[in-house]
Amino acid sequence: MALDGRKLANGATFIDFQTEPSKYRHWKLDVAGDTATLTMDVDENGGLFEGYQLKLNSYDLGVDIELADAVQRLRFEHPGVKVVLLRSGKNRVFCAGANIRMLAGSTHAHKVNFCKFTNETRNGLEDSSANSGQRFICVVNGTAAGGGYELALAADHIIMADDGAAAVALPEVPLLAVLPGTGGLTRVVDKRKVRRDHADFFCTIEEGIKGRRAVQWRLVDEIVPNSRLEAKVATRAKEFAAGSKRAGEGEGIALTPLTREITDNGLRYGCVDVEINRDARIATITIKASEGEPPADVAGMSAQGASFWPLQVARELDDAILHLRINELEIAMLVFKSVGEGARVVAYDDFIEANKAHWLVNEIRHTWKRVLKRIDVTSRTLVTLVEPGSCFAGTLAELVFAADRSYMLIGQRQGDNRAPAEIVLTAANFGAYPMSHGLTRLESRFQADPSELETARAKTGEAIDAGSAEDLGLVTFALDDIDWDDEVRVFLEERASFSPDGLTGMEANLRFVGPETMESKIFSRLTAWQNWIFQRPNAVGETGALQRYGTGVKAQFDMTRV
Amino acid sequence: MALDGRKLANGATFIDFQTEPSKYRHWKLDVAGDTATLTMDVDENGGLFEGYQLKLNSYDLGVDIELADAVQRLRFEHPGVKVVLLRSGKNRVFCAGANIRMLAGSTHAHKVNFCKFTNETRNGLEDSSANSGQRFICVVNGTAAGGGYELALAADHIIMADDGAAAVALPEVPLLAVLPGTGGLTRVVDKRKVRRDHADFFCTIEEGIKGRRAVQWRLVDEIVPNSRLEAKVATRAKEFAAGSKRAGEGEGIALTPLTREITDNGLRYGCVDVEINRDARIATITIKASEGEPPADVAGMSAQGASFWPLQVARELDDAILHLRINELEIAMLVFKSVGEGARVVAYDDFIEANKAHWLVNEIRHTWKRVLKRIDVTSRTLVTLVEPGSCFAGTLAELVFAADRSYMLIGQRQGDNRAPAEIVLTAANFGAYPMSHGLTRLESRFQADPSELETARAKTGEAIDAGSAEDLGLVTFALDDIDWDDEVRVFLEERASFSPDGLTGMEANLRFVGPETMESKIFSRLTAWQNWIFQRPNAVGETGALQRYGTGVKAQFDMTRV
Repeated sequence: MALDGRKLANGATFIDFQTEPSKYRHWKLDVAGDTATLTMDVDENGGLFEGYQLKLNSYDLGVDIELADAVQRLRFEHPGVKVVLLRSGKNRVFCAGANIRMLAGSTHAHKVNFCKFTNETRNGLEDSSANSGQRFICVVNGTAAGGGYELALAADHIIMADDGAAAVALPEVPLLAVLPGTGGLTRVVDKRKVRRDHADFFCTIEEGIKGRRAVQWRLVDEIVPNSRLEAKVATRAKEFAAGSKRAGEGEGIALTPLTREITDNGLRYGCVDVEINRDARIATITIKASEGEPPADVAGMSAQGASFWPLQVARELDDAILHLRINELEIAMLVFKSVGEGARVVAYDDFIEANKAHWLVNEIRHTWKRVLKRIDVTSRTLVTLVEPGSCFAGTLAELVFAADRSYMLIGQRQGDNRAPAEIVLTAANFGAYPMSHGLTRLESRFQADPSELETARAKTGEAIDAGSAEDLGLVTFALDDIDWDDEVRVFLEERASFSPDGLTGMEANLRFVGPETMESKIFSRLTAWQNWIFQRPNAVGETGALQRYGTGVKAQFDMTRV
Repeated sequence: MALDGRKLANGATFIDFQTEPSKYRHWKLDVAGDTATLTMDVDENGGLFEGYQLKLNSYDLGVDIELADAVQRLRFEHPGVKVVLLRSGKNRVFCAGANIRMLAGSTHAHKVNFCKFTNETRNGLEDSSANSGQRFICVVNGTAAGGGYELALAADHIIMADDGAAAVALPEVPLLAVLPGTGGLTRVVDKRKVRRDHADFFCTIEEGIKGRRAVQWRLVDEIVPNSRLEAKVATRAKEFAAGSKRAGEGEGIALTPLTREITDNGLRYGCVDVEINRDARIATITIKASEGEPPADVAGMSAQGASFWPLQVARELDDAILHLRINELEIAMLVFKSVGEGARVVAYDDFIEANKAHWLVNEIRHTWKRVLKRIDVTSRTLVTLVEPGSCFAGTLAELVFAADRSYMLIGQRQGDNRAPAEIVLTAANFGAYPMSHGLTRLESRFQADPSELETARAKTGEAIDAGSAEDLGLVTFALDDIDWDDEVRVFLEERASFSPDGLTGMEANLRFVGPETMESKIFSRLTAWQNWIFQRPNAVGETGALQRYGTGVKAQFDMTRV
């Protein structure tokens, strides 16, 4: 597998996004009643790659994979948890942010992928708070610098020790010549609404801000002397729990390990299959419809747990996307296919729509939303092929609308007796899965004429054939059997020949029509600038700040302002 | 002056943004009744730099400087013009876009500055249409490729010849491995609301789209056979003129040449003075208040013409900013100062507020709005120093709120008998000058607590001293004479030592809190990605597409998707 040249620790051959609490090296997850405590206590020697130590609770992708896993498990496995305390296990240090030696030694692609995933994890904390009522309180017991403060910024409430030492800081610009790029700049002004000139001051001092000014400038919510810190944390936890809308019942369901087989040419999960063609630079992701009907009721769903089809597919698809992003850097295109009975997909969508008030159903819907959002910001060309035997209905049809281009085959294929392809819309296509900028994929699609959205909505539940799908604007091109192979092949070959960078920039612009939200600004304004800086010699060159950091030699900059 | 290494044509020593129709080499401006025709007929041998020819109506910064001048003059000098026809003077070619050899030979900084200015010019066309009622109709008589189509996209209406040859195209990604970065990607989906998958197709084919599909996909508004083209253009011109809100009277005023003296260490205009300190990397821009009272009425204003103080300052300030941006690349900071009677600035603001319905007053207000927007997207640290003897009132106070940081001196300076500094707010601070993302600078400033905006508004017309200004949140820091010199000096020295790239990215994020508009998306999502690509070897490296273009040798790409 094409990694990025560096050596993974412990002989690993790829970066694995699957973990579970018993395997955590950097986090502890404790649950007591309605309050969970997530303690960051990074194992210095537990880096994902060889060649650096994770001192002072600094982190690499491996640390964040555990955090993402913990946040996801809290939602599914702990329905009773209403408050999550985000704490440090180190004395007088909250978190020093992304490990600088790790960053300095990373390829450009790894830096970008690392930041993307950590951004998604922090957005995930906020999503949990907003949509699952698991409120996050961050306890800053010492220095929260750079990515450490950015982690705190993702919480609902920040309590900082008032001990003359604890401080929050975004020292990236003065220290490293890069940005606080994991949402930091955006959250400071857009979420915490720190005045821009205060933010300017704050982001240009290495030492950060402590004490009263941190509260006055809205960088933290409150400061508390160490003697009263634990009591204050307990009080706030009670208050946030009382205000939480979390209404989970029962035991939760275990997110059991995925069934996954990785080979040289792909990944095979229970319902998701990934076939990798490195010569053509294509990964074909095929999703199988359920072979059975949905359970009769939510009790039946809970009994199925992680093998409940919509949840299983979402988790498998998520893992596949993450795997391809970070382990298969030369794959240019993700081609989505599906196979099975569309009626089954509709039946599961209907089940979910009918039971959306149930906490577990709610979690599953929001998981799908996040998986689809992850696809939206994946910098590979997204193609969906709607062929005979496919089942692009409802939730799976979102993969048609998420695609940069979709092709649908008209009628049957010669020598293939499978029924012609159909698309079926369900309620899920009209609100359940907003993109990061706040619009659904169909709303985005029909910006020019919202009446087309209503025309599509009126077809909910109907089987839409290729010609109609093209007429309704649901697919890019409908092609008959005679043209299909050539047209699709030429498109895929041509696409694979283009500059990956041009495509990344183009797709990141065309996919997000209309408004921006804080979340989408993080992936556009902030990330795009950070990626630029990650390419500039002043940051990453031999005399740049990332390379020179810690050497005692000052960085040398080209002083041209661009 | 630190240009970018290449040689300017005709022995020029700096890039001059001042021009006038009699000097145009690339455009013709004809006015007939309520319709103006702007004809692009680029002089191949009129490039700004040596080393390339501007074939096929391709352009460089020099071409765009003329266009920007023409658009500005139309607003001031031609109050009767309601429709502007944007046409090509070449046979079967509309415009081939930015000249590729020019781009290939440009420094990174020049590319970025070039795109920024051309973006501002296209935004200016749209601003003229929206706020001056000068509607733009673009007549595409042949190929409109890349920046050529992006120019058309800035118009209100695009008519294309239906002759089997005329086509619109955005071939940047397949041909050059860069983006259609002068608003193209954004305007295609956000303004013309082309469906994203159609846009994806359109932006990945070199040959573009002609005929009916161009209309069906919303890329142009209509296609017309050549035999009926002129008649259709005339009809549309009449229709748009009838719908225009343009209500200019009389003769217009001449935008006479600026009084400007350029020396090694600065620029001196009538009311604006720029002092350049290259060692400290600071340009200090001082604006002088009017020495006289405003005229009694609009007739008096019209008689003053371009020397009417608000207009004169706006034009001088605009030229100074543009000059510094492109000719002084190592200047890290723009330090704004002012000198004179604040009461005079208030009097002019009051005059403008009282007469804002007058067409010329309207033009002056919108010019100031655009100058301030230009400052907002200038990638230099913006600092405003509010000192005794200054006049940061109303319109000039926007320079305090546009600054990344502002310092205000408390009381008087030892040995200086000028009265303590005061800030005065006027109606102009509460709506006249929205930033590109739609909020005023004070609205942006008080996102955390909009009641602070109301508190400030209640002080309109009052003299606000340094302590009160700090309390009201209008300045970053109020300092007394004892601390002033050291604090300001240390800040400026430290700032000048930081990586320019880190500062550019940081400032571009912190300055724009809250919503985004199409215009601000062009400067954030689109521009930031384009700048990244302009730094990537796949575009600009030795084997990259920009270098290899036209050589007959295919570009070679690193196929890593980032």
